[in-house]
Parts: sequence; C-alpha cells; structure tokens
Amino acid sequence: MLVVMQEGATETQIQNVIDRLVSMGFTVHRSTGVRHTVLGGVGPLENFETADFEVLDGVKECHRIIAPYKLANRSFRPAGTVVRVGDIEIGAARVVIMAGPCSVENPDQIERIAEVVARAGATVIRGGAFKPRTSPYSFQGLGEEGLKLLRAAADRNKLLTVSEVMDKSQIPLLVSYADILQVGARNMQNFPLLTELGRLRKPVLLKRGIAATLEELLLSAEYILSGGNYDVMLCERGIRTFENATRNTMDISAIPVLHSLTHLPVIADPSHGTGRRDKVLPMARAAVAASADGLLIEVHHDPDHALSDGAQSLWPEQFADLMGQLRIIAPAVGRTI
Amino acid sequence: MLVVMQEGATETQIQNVIDRLVSMGFTVHRSTGVRHTVLGGVGPLENFETADFEVLDGVKECHRIIAPYKLANRSFRPAGTVVRVGDIEIGAARVVIMAGPCSVENPDQIERIAEVVARAGATVIRGGAFKPRTSPYSFQGLGEEGLKLLRAAADRNKLLTVSEVMDKSQIPLLVSYADILQVGARNMQNFPLLTELGRLRKPVLLKRGIAATLEELLLSAEYILSGGNYDVMLCERGIRTFENATRNTMDISAIPVLHSLTHLPVIADPSHGTGRRDKVLPMARAAVAASADGLLIEVHHDPDHALSDGAQSLWPEQFADLMGQLRIIAPAVGRTI
Amino acid sequence: MLVVMQEGATETQIQNVIDRLVSMGFTVHRSTGVRHTVLGGVGPLENFETADFEVLDGVKECHRIIAPYKLANRSFRPAGTVVRVGDIEIGAARVVIMAGPCSVENPDQIERIAEVVARAGATVIRGGAFKPRTSPYSFQGLGEEGLKLLRAAADRNKLLTVSEVMDKSQIPLLVSYADILQVGARNMQNFPLLTELGRLRKPVLLKRGIAATLEELLLSAEYILSGGNYDVMLCERGIRTFENATRNTMDISAIPVLHSLTHLPVIADPSHGTGRRDKVLPMARAAVAASADGLLIEVHHDPDHALSDGAQSLWPEQFADLMGQLRIIAPAVGRTI
Amino acid sequence: MLVVMQEGATETQIQNVIDRLVSMGFTVHRSTGVRHTVLGGVGPLENFETADFEVLDGVKECHRIIAPYKLANRSFRPAGTVVRVGDIEIGAARVVIMAGPCSVENPDQIERIAEVVARAGATVIRGGAFKPRTSPYSFQGLGEEGLKLLRAAADRNKLLTVSEVMDKSQIPLLVSYADILQVGARNMQNFPLLTELGRLRKPVLLKRGIAATLEELLLSAEYILSGGNYDVMLCERGIRTFENATRNTMDISAIPVLHSLTHLPVIADPSHGTGRRDKVLPMARAAVAASADGLLIEVHHDPDHALSDGAQSLWPEQFADLMGQLRIIAPAVGRTI
Repeated sequence: MLVVMQEGATETQIQNVIDRLVSMGFTVHRSTGVRHTVLGGVGPLENFETADFEVLDGVKECHRIIAPYKLANRSFRPAGTVVRVGDIEIGAARVVIMAGPCSVENPDQIERIAEVVARAGATVIRGGAFKPRTSPYSFQGLGEEGLKLLRAAADRNKLLTVSEVMDKSQIPLLVSYADILQVGARNMQNFPLLTELGRLRKPVLLKRGIAATLEELLLSAEYILSGGNYDVMLCERGIRTFENATRNTMDISAIPVLHSLTHLPVIADPSHGTGRRDKVLPMARAAVAASADGLLIEVHHDPDHALSDGAQSLWPEQFADLMGQLRIIAPAVGRTI
Repeated sequence: MLVVMQEGATETQIQNVIDRLVSMGFTVHRSTGVRHTVLGGVGPLENFETADFEVLDGVKECHRIIAPYKLANRSFRPAGTVVRVGDIEIGAARVVIMAGPCSVENPDQIERIAEVVARAGATVIRGGAFKPRTSPYSFQGLGEEGLKLLRAAADRNKLLTVSEVMDKSQIPLLVSYADILQVGARNMQNFPLLTELGRLRKPVLLKRGIAATLEELLLSAEYILSGGNYDVMLCERGIRTFENATRNTMDISAIPVLHSLTHLPVIADPSHGTGRRDKVLPMARAAVAASADGLLIEVHHDPDHALSDGAQSLWPEQFADLMGQLRIIAPAVGRTI
Repeated sequence: MLVVMQEGATETQIQNVIDRLVSMGFTVHRSTGVRHTVLGGVGPLENFETADFEVLDGVKECHRIIAPYKLANRSFRPAGTVVRVGDIEIGAARVVIMAGPCSVENPDQIERIAEVVARAGATVIRGGAFKPRTSPYSFQGLGEEGLKLLRAAADRNKLLTVSEVMDKSQIPLLVSYADILQVGARNMQNFPLLTELGRLRKPVLLKRGIAATLEELLLSAEYILSGGNYDVMLCERGIRTFENATRNTMDISAIPVLHSLTHLPVIADPSHGTGRRDKVLPMARAAVAASADGLLIEVHHDPDHALSDGAQSLWPEQFADLMGQLRIIAPAVGRTI
Repeated sequence: MLVVMQEGATETQIQNVIDRLVSMGFTVHRSTGVRHTVLGGVGPLENFETADFEVLDGVKECHRIIAPYKLANRSFRPAGTVVRVGDIEIGAARVVIMAGPCSVENPDQIERIAEVVARAGATVIRGGAFKPRTSPYSFQGLGEEGLKLLRAAADRNKLLTVSEVMDKSQIPLLVSYADILQVGARNMQNFPLLTELGRLRKPVLLKRGIAATLEELLLSAEYILSGGNYDVMLCERGIRTFENATRNTMDISAIPVLHSLTHLPVIADPSHGTGRRDKVLPMARAAVAASADGLLIEVHHDPDHALSDGAQSLWPEQFADLMGQLRIIAPAVGRTI
C-alpha cells in the first residue's frame, strides 16, 4: 500500500502512520519528497481497508497496490481457465451458446424450446426453476418440477443445462439436475451462498450485479475460488445507469477489461443486458466481436405468452438468424461458433 | 395500465393488444386521438410487466398507473406506521437514534460503546455479528458469541438492539438476541430471506440496495409485509453514482420522497452513506432536517483499531456533539430527539 | 399528454387540471376508471413540461405521448438520412472510417498520420485545432494554424476532414477548413452554438454528452435541424457510470436504439468511449457488429509523445489490423468497409 | 506522481518509464519492493495525464499525488474566501439567500416576486433573461429586456441580482445589469466562456454539471481563477443518477466535501436539485444543516402560470415558512440567516 501524506504533515503524524502499518505487519519504506512524504507498505495482508488510513491525521490519500483478489487474478493462471462441462469447453476457441427460456413453464414448452436451440447450434440450455422476482406477486418458478423438466428436455436433445440457485438451501436440488449453477445478479454478494458454492466441484456461472464494479465481481468470484471450486465463469448482463432507453446498459467493454484482469471465462447475456428482443441481436453480435467466450440468450417458442421475460426472448427464427450472423463474426476474433 | 399505440398503428395491431389485455383479465377502455390511440386497461393484477406489451407490434409505450406495491403504499395507511419496540416508537415525534460499532469485537469494546451511546441519548445499540464483507479475506464477525455480548451490553445500559441477518438460516439465532433484525443493502433482493422475515412478528430494518430505486425498495418491503409482518422500517444508506469523493452518495431526498410514497418509517444511515467520519456529522444533521424518523450511526470508542468500518465510526465526543446539534435542528421539523 | 389523477381526486381537482389543459390549447378527453381518472390531452404543443402538471393538486403522474423532437424523429424520414460529403456517403451501405490524431501538433505529425490512415482505408481525417481541456493548464490546440495543416494533409491524401468547434465565434474559421464540424460532448447543450450551426449548410457531427439521455441528444440535434441544416450525424462516445475500469462506459446499445428513434446516421467513437488503446479495438469491432454507420478513431504515428489523448490513440499497425477485422465483421450486418 | 510497475516488469520497462518521466521534467525516486517497483515522480507540472503512463509496457497503475487545481485548492487560502458583493458577504457567518423566478417574464411578475423574497429575508434576487432550454421549442428568455426589469425590481427592493450567462458574447450585457453572473450546469465546461469570465472582476456563481465530479468542478473554477478573477462561488444543483423519483439527485454531501477541498463558498440549489416544490423545502433545510454558505431558490407569485420551472417554484407563503425553519437550523452550524 502507498500512503501519501498531506503537504505539511508533521513528523508525529508520519510516525503515527508508520506505527499503525508496522503493527499490522507491514514493512514500511519511507520516501520524502519536496512537498509530500510517501510511505510504501509491503505486507502479508490484502484485506485491510484503505479508508482506515485515509482518516488518520495528516494523511492525504492511500492506494492499494496489490489487487484484493488473488485466485481470480490473471497472474494466477496467465494462460486462462477453460471450464470443462460434459464434452464442451468454455474459454476455448469455440464460443459457447447457452439458450433457452427465462423460466421452465411446462413439459411442452421446454421440450419445444430445447429442440429449437439445439438445432440452431446451442450446446447448453438455460431455464429457471427458482426465479428471483422483484415483486412478491410475480410467478416464482416451478421449483424441483421445473428442474426435472429441464433435465429431461436437455437429455433428449443432447444439451447441457444451466439453472439459477437463489439460496444455499437450494444447492442440493440444483446439483442433482443442473450441469452449471447460475448465481443471479441480485445474489452476486450473497456471501453465504458463494461460500457454499466454493465447496462444490461443479461449474458456477456468476453474474455481475447491476451496480457492481468489476473488482467487486472478482472478489465475489474469489469467495468461490477460495473454497477450492475453480470452475467459475463470469457474466456481464447489463448495469444500471441514468439511461432508460434500455432496461439496463450492457457494458460490452467489461468483456475485454475482464480478460485483462482475470483468467476466468467471460459470458455475455444480451437478453438481460437490454431487456428488449430487438436489441438482443445487435448486442449479441457486439459481445462476440468483443471476444466473449460465450453467450446466454433467452429464446422462447411463444414469447407473447411467456410467464416471465417474454419481451426479451427471441423468436426461434430470430435465434437461428443470429447464429448465422455470429458465424460470420467469430473468425474476426479467431473463434468459431 | 395505459398502452399508447404508435402513430399509424393498424386496426389489427390495436385489436391484438386489446385481445391480450382482455385475456389477462383487464377491462379495456379505448380512446382514439388525432395521432395516437390509447388503450386504458383496468384489471385485477399488478404483477404484469409493461415490457411485455411494449414489444407488441404497433405499440409505442406503456405506463403502469397503479403502483406495483399495495401494502407498502402510503394510501394503505395514510396516517403512517409507528413501529413499537420495547418502549420506543419509531415513526412518532421523537427521532430515534441507533448507534454503536460496525461489528461486535469483544466484551470490553461493546460494553464501553454501549455506555457511550446510552449516555449521549441513543435508545438502540447497533452491532454486527454476521458481517457481509466484499472480500473473503476480511473479518466476518463473531457469530452467536457476538450476539450474546451485544445483548448483555444492551441490557446493562437499558438499550434495545439491532443486528444484521445475512441468510435465512441465521434467523432463529437473531430472533433470540436482537430486538430489530437488519437486512443489509446487499440482501435487499434476497427474496428467500425476505419471505422468511415476513413470517416473523419482529421489526425489520430494511436497507436500500446501492443501486435500488425507491420502487424496488418498496417492492422488497412488500415481500415482508405480504407475509403479515407489518413492522418494517426503511433505511437510506447511500447509492452508487459516478462521484467517488465519498464512498457512496447519500440520497437525502429519498427521505421526503419515501414519506410521500409509503407509510413506513424512514431511517438514515450517514455512516455507510458517506464512509468517512468527518462527513457523517453534516449528513446526520441533513437527514434530521429532511425529516428522517431515525438515524443509524457507527460509533466506536477506539475507531483506529476497529476490526471493520473504523474510518466511518465517530469518536465518542463527536457523537455527543452531534446529538447536541440535532437537538437544535429537530424542532425545525416539529420533532424532538 | 396523459394525466393520471390520484385515487380519490376530487371533482374540483379534476376540473382544475382540465381547465389548465384547455387554457394551453389542448383538447381534453376524460376517461373515468374504477380507481383513477385519466385525462388525455391532444394539443398543438410539444414544448410543455409534464412536471408542471405533476405538481397540481390531485395529480398522480403525467406521460408525454408524442416525442418532444419532430425533425429528428424516425417518422420524419423513415428511410433514413444519408449525409453526403464530397464523394462519401454516411448512412449508406459502406461504414465510414474517420481516423487521425486527437490534436494537430505540427506539419510532420499530421502528414504522417494522414498517410497512415488513408492507406489503411479511412476516408476522413480527424484532428483538433481547438481543444476543450478539463484543466486550464493543458495544451489547448494550435487554432487556425492547426486547421491549415489538417486541410493540407487531407488534400494531399485525398481525405475529407472533421474538426471540433467549441464556440460560435469559431464557426467562420472552421467552415473555411473543415468538411464536417464536430460538436464535442461538453458542448452538446451549448444552445447558442447549436443554433448557429443550424444556419449553416455544412455537415455536423454531434457527440452525446457524457450524461445525456438519447432523448436529450435528439433534442440537441433538433436545434440544428430546426434551423434548416439537415446534415447531422450523431456520435456515441461513452457515458459516465459508476464503473471506473474504463474512462467512460461505451454504450454500444445506443447504436440500435438511435436507429429506432431517429433517421440520422450514428457514428461510434471507441477512443473516447474507452480511453485506453487496448480497449479501442474490441469496442470498434463491437460498434460495427451493432450496425454503426461509421467510426471515429484516434490514430497517432507516435502515441507516446502525443500532446493529448496519447493513451487512447492506436499505433498505425493496430489500426491496419483493426481494419482487417472490421472487413470480416461488416458483411454480418449487410455492410462493407 | 506515483507509477506502480506490474509484478515481473522487466528492467527495460522500468527504465523506459523513468526515461519518459525525466524527459518531462520529473525527478524520479525509485523504490523496489518484494513484488512491485514503485516510481515516484516529482515535477513542475500538474497538467500531465496519468493515462499516458498507464498504457506504457509493464505499468500497472499511476496515481496523481498533487491535485490538478492549484488556485481553487483549500491550501491556497486555508481561511476560506469571502465573496463581497454590495454590502453582503458570501462565505461568512450569515447564510445568503438568493431567491426569485426561473425566468423574468414581465414587469408585474418580477416586481411582485422581488417584494415577496425581500420581505422574507432574501438579499439577492435571481431571474434568467437567457435560458438554456433542452428543447428548441421552449421559451428562451426575454434577453436584455429581462435584465432591465430584473435590475429595476431589485433596486426598488434593495436586492442584489444574479442572472445566467450562456455564451461569452452575452457577457457585456450581463455585466451592465447583474451583480453576480451565473454559469449554468450545461456550461460548466464551456471553456471559452470560463476563460472570458476570468478576465472580469465580477463575482461568478459556477454550477456543477449534472455529471461532473467535484474535481472537474474545481478545474472549471480554476479556469476563472487563473484569469485573475477570484470571486467564484460553487453551486451544487443535483446530479444525474439511476433514480428517477426526483428530477436530479441532490448531492448534499458535496457541500462538506467541497469545504474540505476548496476555499470557495458553496451554494446549494434545491430547486433544480429536486425539480419538485414539495421536495425543495426538506432539501433546503438539509443544505443549511450541512453547512452551505447560501441557497439559490426558485420562488414565483403564481407558479401555475410560470413560463418555466413552475413545478419547482415555491409559493410565497412556502418560502416564508422555509425561512422560519432555516432560522431554527442555522445556529446548529454556528450560522445565522
């Protein structure tokens, strides 16, 4: 850590900061400039808070030098992580397409959609059985019954499955039916859930919270990694900004920024990222052009009657068209679909 | 709901929207203007999504007329809710001061702080035993031991207690030791937790998420209220904006806006709202001047050695001074401290 | 306009709103529902403020039905505007690449960069002579001398030019040397400047302010269009959000949203959108994949010594590589480069 | 400046950064840690961009130590600036109230409002003659005629005047009629205008842009100060966030933060900060409780028929009530009204 003292900080103030640092186990290096004294602290800890030093008398500001996450850091695995699930690889040359309905609704619905997405080239089917809904009066998902239907439809169409877990008590159920466990944006900082997921040996798709910085996303990933579960994928799904023309503002630049900061694969979810089906297509193309490792896309055979997220679900033919466009774009970034 | 059709929408498109509305149970009123046809839908439901209509052919935009929350709505209890805990009333003429450390650390710490805050005029002591920390490497709280210490210190000083619950599995423990259960900003949309809290008959202090709109905050309150637990307090604790001069941007205007929208008491937390002790004082004063029903403030007898949030914890003498200032301000809004 | 009255609004309150509407020239249509009365106002005006009605007694909320901009509206020219400058067309099948340095610095610099960008396939060279700098102590541009150098380098390399105008007093100078006048993000609401530009018959490239909604951007375009100058291009260049990993957050979704709302061509500026050269490439690809009509990119032959924006300027070979990638992507959206 | 090198940065990379720093006039101090090398640069310049170093090979991050503004810095005048206009002092013990209509509309209107605000205790009257309007179809102000009416009404009521300047060409006119020149939020970075205002010897009230950081606000003030005009007041008037319950989110914490960073007086504008008259009152109280040096408030004798900003204008009796409340609050922060 670097502590920059104020101009005119007294020797007593400087010594006080040095004492604090030393008492916390830091080795301190002092550098006296014309206007400012700078203290460099090298220590065993990353879990201190710079704010604790910034309020000490005579301190101007502090800067953390070492990222507060270790296992999620690119430098931990410079070559990048490839998550293997069944016979697919996420983070390798092929862009992985995960598609399906927002919620599993009934046997016919999930079966028809599974066929549609498999035929168009998806390898993973998505579908929620436990739904985090802003209103207590909205459809909350079918629970275990939904997971069973999802599994059956996936198996018949040789697809893998991804489904959301909302609470640590649901983990055993999810583990039985899903190949990838999804943590939704609202749960990105549900630490008891993340801690539990760290104990599994099952891939986790961790979505960025709507107001989470990328550093916070990586610290949440660190909760899972530090438990020993290294199969973590990150997912950009739109952030909240002042602009309301779209439901969220999809932060496409998060894709290349995450590739610099971390070795974990990066998935893009243009359905939640925009909230409107006509905007899903351009944003899906943009995500692949920006080097996403995979896409998570809502597709429904009859969006007008979907029980949730109908407005952002693609029609089957739109999804097929999109796959064709993505096959043109992928080679520009050295990938295939 | 109001559906505004695009200029030039065809009769078929208009009829299609009417059919959708009718099939969902709405009674439809059609109004044909010079340029736009407007459809007014009156129905039994509040839990539809306007986006589902906005993607229909020929639709320009939709507006929800009735707020999606019912029990949290001001109109449900125009006179306002007063939450009674022990012998204090929250939402009445006296502004309630809840103060104490971020985390319970040890017997001596919590005892000393309890004395300090009681002497200065606080009636509730805060103190965390389960701490949601952004980094897995940070201090996570003392758990049940912390709750016991908090209870004992409170009792000796005739204070009530408020402490955070992070996961529904912790509820039984919290219920035994705390008078008010706090839901932190990161858990504002932890719906399994909210649903469980709705089954209690114990006051809940619900904090606004850092990027939650006030409507979303009220929908989260609705989860608790709809379970039958009406003793809910809302808490403004800073939102995330582009400005980084403070850790969060405290939205003081949320206080009067919430008073218009809902009957629930509104608490302000200037400690998390600013993240720096020298900014806690002016913002605590501002919150009372803007008619907050209570304050939640971090105080520590030795902030420099606090295990968490030291930078935003007031020194005992600062807290005492603040109480004096607040006693001057409260009469301007017809309150006492 | 639609005015939704509160539940329980009195007849007097309703009548008062009707009177206000009528006095402003609106024809009022009243619709009485079970819980709410809705007043629809059809009128000759778009320049009223809904807030003026929202504070009237008994009013719950107001919604504007007709967009406040007319000439910028897609419906004004459904087929889309093609801006013609010299022998290029912006808004047609070919994606137009505008590239060059942030500032014109000296004859050698601008000449070398002009060669580089022309060879790689750009058709317009950018280069600032008047620079809006956040600090008064930063390089402010060469003024007229810079414009002369830009013109000469462009002519020698058969390029068109785009350069920024900061104040209406600079217009005569810009008109003499530049083919396209750029209005920077900080001046998006410099109304005296926009009004003056409306009197020209010269193309204007209008950048979105860092916190401007798309509606505000279109209203600023309306200032120019309403003066009679129809050759306006819009430019997305990053918005300000809570995320600081990039200088701004480039809102790629603004591209398809603007294509829905307006007939004006949409340009993307990934250099300012990200602020870091390694992020410019993926975002330039994403913009073309999302159907941008053109790109504005900073290129410098020696970015390490650029007098401004060196960090976001591409090296010549990076720019050439990027052009190759864009040529792969463009056909996916039915375009060429 | 501090440059933190990446872990594993090579000696060549480190030497390259040192050479760049030295070539720019910095004296470099090198500190080699266990994992990171840190370079401290002490130099004559503040106008460099840290991003230029962050893209150099092997660099992890850079931190500016010295604030980029000098004359606006608190350390330049630790005792604080008191702006004297006529016989009032802004930045001294008395909180200065500036009140009046958004726009000057006609002789009767401005005269009646001047009487109202003078009687209630305001010492400055506000009123716009040149109005920056988002839409080209809105009322744009009376121009010079408005300034004359404002001056006359002020003189008759022994008030000083503040009015907005939108373009540098309007300065001569404003100087003749107004005591304080206001720069609106949209013009906070209109650098030609700021430069011109720096040449005056007349007080300037500089409003914060809706998405401007406090550092950017201070750099804009620096443009005026560096021209030799030291009579600058800053004004917080709401920032743009994701929350739409109010037109803007008033950043009350900006008041104490600015008092720490700068010696310039800080004014608060709760009218624009909230956009709704019922929210103006609590926010005006909050601003005084947070130690604002003055308030800028819109008051109209007939807000329902105001030509602009009627919804946020106080009724005369509301304004008088507010003054009474503020007189109770001011002593809590050692001030008078």
